Amino acid sequence: MSTPTRQPSVVYGRPVSTAGVPNIYSGAKVIPWTAPDPGIDNLGINSIDTFAVPGVGEYTVAFDGYVRVVRSQPTSREWFKAEVYTNLIEMKMVGECEELGRITVTLNPECLSAGQIRTPFDPYAGEGPSAKACRMAVGAIFEMPKLGLQLVNKEPIILTIDDVRQIPPAGAPGKGQIYRMLPLHDRRRPDDEPVAYVTSLRFNMGGYLSPEELAAK
Amino acid sequence: MSTPTRQPSVVYGRPVSTAGVPNIYSGAKVIPWTAPDPGIDNLGINSIDTFAVPGVGEYTVAFDGYVRVVRSQPTSREWFKAEVYTNLIEMKMVGECEELGRITVTLNPECLSAGQIRTPFDPYAGEGPSAKACRMAVGAIFEMPKLGLQLVNKEPIILTIDDVRQIPPAGAPGKGQIYRMLPLHDRRRPDDEPVAYVTSLRFNMGGYLSPEELAAK
Repeated sequence: MSTPTRQPSVVYGRPVSTAGVPNIYSGAKVIPWTAPDPGIDNLGINSIDTFAVPGVGEYTVAFDGYVRVVRSQPTSREWFKAEVYTNLIEMKMVGECEELGRITVTLNPECLSAGQIRTPFDPYAGEGPSAKACRMAVGAIFEMPKLGLQLVNKEPIILTIDDVRQIPPAGAPGKGQIYRMLPLHDRRRPDDEPVAYVTSLRFNMGGYLSPEELAAK
Repeated sequence: MSTPTRQPSVVYGRPVSTAGVPNIYSGAKVIPWTAPDPGIDNLGINSIDTFAVPGVGEYTVAFDGYVRVVRSQPTSREWFKAEVYTNLIEMKMVGECEELGRITVTLNPECLSAGQIRTPFDPYAGEGPSAKACRMAVGAIFEMPKLGLQLVNKEPIILTIDDVRQIPPAGAPGKGQIYRMLPLHDRRRPDDEPVAYVTSLRFNMGGYLSPEELAAK
């Protein structure tokens, strides 16, 4: 539950301070079309990731876990105008498949994983007229003890949620914007060839968790 | 024409050494379906980029210029198996529009812009059976003297070329894989709100340039 204290050397977006920002847990009320006060959202998350290991195979793994996201003061109280900046301050997702074993995904403390929620310049057909777009650039560690490997991405994983009608976008489906393949490197030898690739990532933001549910994940 | 000497703090992929690698200029022969010896490719490039400035407008600008790309030894001499790692070691592209003035795009020396060429895991219909995919993660500076601004991206711009049948993929069209918006920050205040966004980027890799053509761009 502790926030990483090391100073990240790679900053993917705008830093958001956690100082004085309250944790928000299950039971909190989310009001659609409203730009809320700052908060640290403690949310469930699950995802389906596909990993390709050159010469070995492609493996699809279901993950479940939680994220903790700090949200900035919105730049406006008007929903349409409001921009909200976000940092992913903690993540833990666990999945398993026979070939790769148990995989635990956490944040890479060398990166500041950052994002924002704003009204898009290119609203999609089918979205509400004021729906927002959410994006987050993430540096992660994929721990695979069965293979004796910790894998890291050196390009951020861009997680996006469209058609955002409330903040946080709890319950919304999202996608990792991976074009064909995102290289993963051995954390001990990051300058060597990638050892695997993420070829697909789809996720669902869950709702608020209680402190007990968070601790149990 | 000099390679940046500052050590980049942000490394988007695998470093490739330029030591002893020959420059390649116009007149060099490119053989399709062949993994060539290492080289520094001096290539023309042009692109059409769209910038959105919140509250101000959206501007589409045509750029022309050059790139210098160092290529690694291929991991195999067999085309299908070969992986080639690349670093973008120099770039200069110039464009202009009335509202933004003249824009010069160069590499951000704080980032190592890196990429690779390999056989994709998900070959597209319409590509040859052994066509490769090329990707490059780029950190750039967009200099806009009319606005008194230097803008930088903190998420890399992912430039991709599909259906690669020769190395380098000179003459091929490519795309910046920008999902809706890529934030650009004021280089002097990188922790502040983005001041603009790239919302679209399409480019064409040109052919080899002569040293004279390069110097003239």
